[in-house]
Amino acid sequence: MTLLNFLEVFSILVNATSGFIEARNRKMDTVGFFIVAFVTAFGGGTLRDILLDRRPLFWVDHQEYTVLIFALALVARPLLNTLEKLLSERLLVIADAIGLGMLSIAGISVALAAGMPPFIAAIMGVITGTFGGVLRDIVCNEVPMLLQDRMPYATCSLLGCGLFLLMRKTGAPADFTLWFSALAITAMRLVTWARDIRIR
Amino acid sequence: MTLLNFLEVFSILVNATSGFIEARNRKMDTVGFFIVAFVTAFGGGTLRDILLDRRPLFWVDHQEYTVLIFALALVARPLLNTLEKLLSERLLVIADAIGLGMLSIAGISVALAAGMPPFIAAIMGVITGTFGGVLRDIVCNEVPMLLQDRMPYATCSLLGCGLFLLMRKTGAPADFTLWFSALAITAMRLVTWARDIRIR
Amino acid sequence: MTLLNFLEVFSILVNATSGFIEARNRKMDTVGFFIVAFVTAFGGGTLRDILLDRRPLFWVDHQEYTVLIFALALVARPLLNTLEKLLSERLLVIADAIGLGMLSIAGISVALAAGMPPFIAAIMGVITGTFGGVLRDIVCNEVPMLLQDRMPYATCSLLGCGLFLLMRKTGAPADFTLWFSALAITAMRLVTWARDIRIR
Repeated sequence: MTLLNFLEVFSILVNATSGFIEARNRKMDTVGFFIVAFVTAFGGGTLRDILLDRRPLFWVDHQEYTVLIFALALVARPLLNTLEKLLSERLLVIADAIGLGMLSIAGISVALAAGMPPFIAAIMGVITGTFGGVLRDIVCNEVPMLLQDRMPYATCSLLGCGLFLLMRKTGAPADFTLWFSALAITAMRLVTWARDIRIR
Repeated sequence: MTLLNFLEVFSILVNATSGFIEARNRKMDTVGFFIVAFVTAFGGGTLRDILLDRRPLFWVDHQEYTVLIFALALVARPLLNTLEKLLSERLLVIADAIGLGMLSIAGISVALAAGMPPFIAAIMGVITGTFGGVLRDIVCNEVPMLLQDRMPYATCSLLGCGLFLLMRKTGAPADFTLWFSALAITAMRLVTWARDIRIR
Repeated sequence: MTLLNFLEVFSILVNATSGFIEARNRKMDTVGFFIVAFVTAFGGGTLRDILLDRRPLFWVDHQEYTVLIFALALVARPLLNTLEKLLSERLLVIADAIGLGMLSIAGISVALAAGMPPFIAAIMGVITGTFGGVLRDIVCNEVPMLLQDRMPYATCSLLGCGLFLLMRKTGAPADFTLWFSALAITAMRLVTWARDIRIR
């Protein structure tokens, strides 16, 4: 398993966990746990692929991840209790920031490969990184946090996508560009969280 | 008109009726009646087809069903009053259970024909059978009932899709497999309703 | 810049403004301003193109409009204050009515060109003209106004699309048909607004 594969599974699990937490807060049943976690984990990438008309969708091509979330949904309640004993809020934020960086840069790469112009590709990166959470909130009948919590979540993603485009134009090595801009997003998210920086 | 055609129209009308009831509860206008009934009747299959990238969509290929729901929306208020005098709640649940079975098995068949792997095809069956109601609730600004009412609605659909896959693998005749698993879903739904069986 | 181009940009800006107003009412941050305005401006056409399986999407092909809404979102708060000093409610309704006419007729034209049957093409026209607002309300966690405000908004759009189909069948010149039916929608909307005509 390469590092990239590992981070992929990691990002999916982090997003699914955020879906499980939301489903538990809403006292949903097991069906709700699965659907909300699924939407949070794959919603951003699926929306991007529908907009780009790319098939097969990620979770169709990787049936195993869907099975994994299904299995986790069956044990999600005890699992969350255990996780909350093991992990601090700080760890969850760090995991989430890593997921944001990975997904955003994966999203912009896919969009550029599909021939999108730069600004649209950056928007697709932000959609991939953040719209799982937006769709989760829509399904759970809440105003999406992303739209009003004043945390620079989408902003970090967009700035990192801009950095990615810039580095790409200057001819930096592809791999370095990818990892550096993903890490930049993670770092920005962590710094703005630690300093409680808000946007208007 | 074959039995299959008949059950198809029947499932659409049952779903549309559930949309009309929701629209009336929300005191919507005629436009709302049409849109909510349309979304409930065709939403699950349309979402499946978008995910599979299949076109033309069912309701584009069968313009007559869209016209039918449009015509029904114009007379939906007196229609519902009449229906409620004629039908008991029991009859509505039976109709709904038949629709769930038909739509789920139609959905998994289409997904397998489109080359989906088995578990994903089963998920597509559940989406076809149940997401009309989920989209109805999202449009009406409610938490989708499917996610939290603890009724084993999606569960019956998923078990029936599993049965379908199993029978298919054992080489049972295609027609028998289709009808038997659709009926199994309907039967499971009715038994769990009659005995008030809940999931966690 | 042709008149058609001008009206296109005009319709997009009118819809984006309605998104900005909604975002301000909900006290959203700048990310929310951008996303809600984007969804309102492009949501109807994007949904139509996904249903028709048309690509590239309008806003992908016209990157400049996405950049424009992004730039406007950054200054949306002072912009709205200025607009409200300059414009009366009457002017906003007129602008909105023009947008409804343009978008509906653009929508039905695209659908017919894609080979849709007439009634479905008319529905696509209504979706293009009105679903930006529906998606805006879904994202903002409200019951879509279109479904329950009893204003004949979708009805004007549908009647105008019917007129378009009729004129097309009688062999009226294509350009005249387009402008006349778009204007008819705008006129119907303004008359029903001025006389406060409601539907059931």
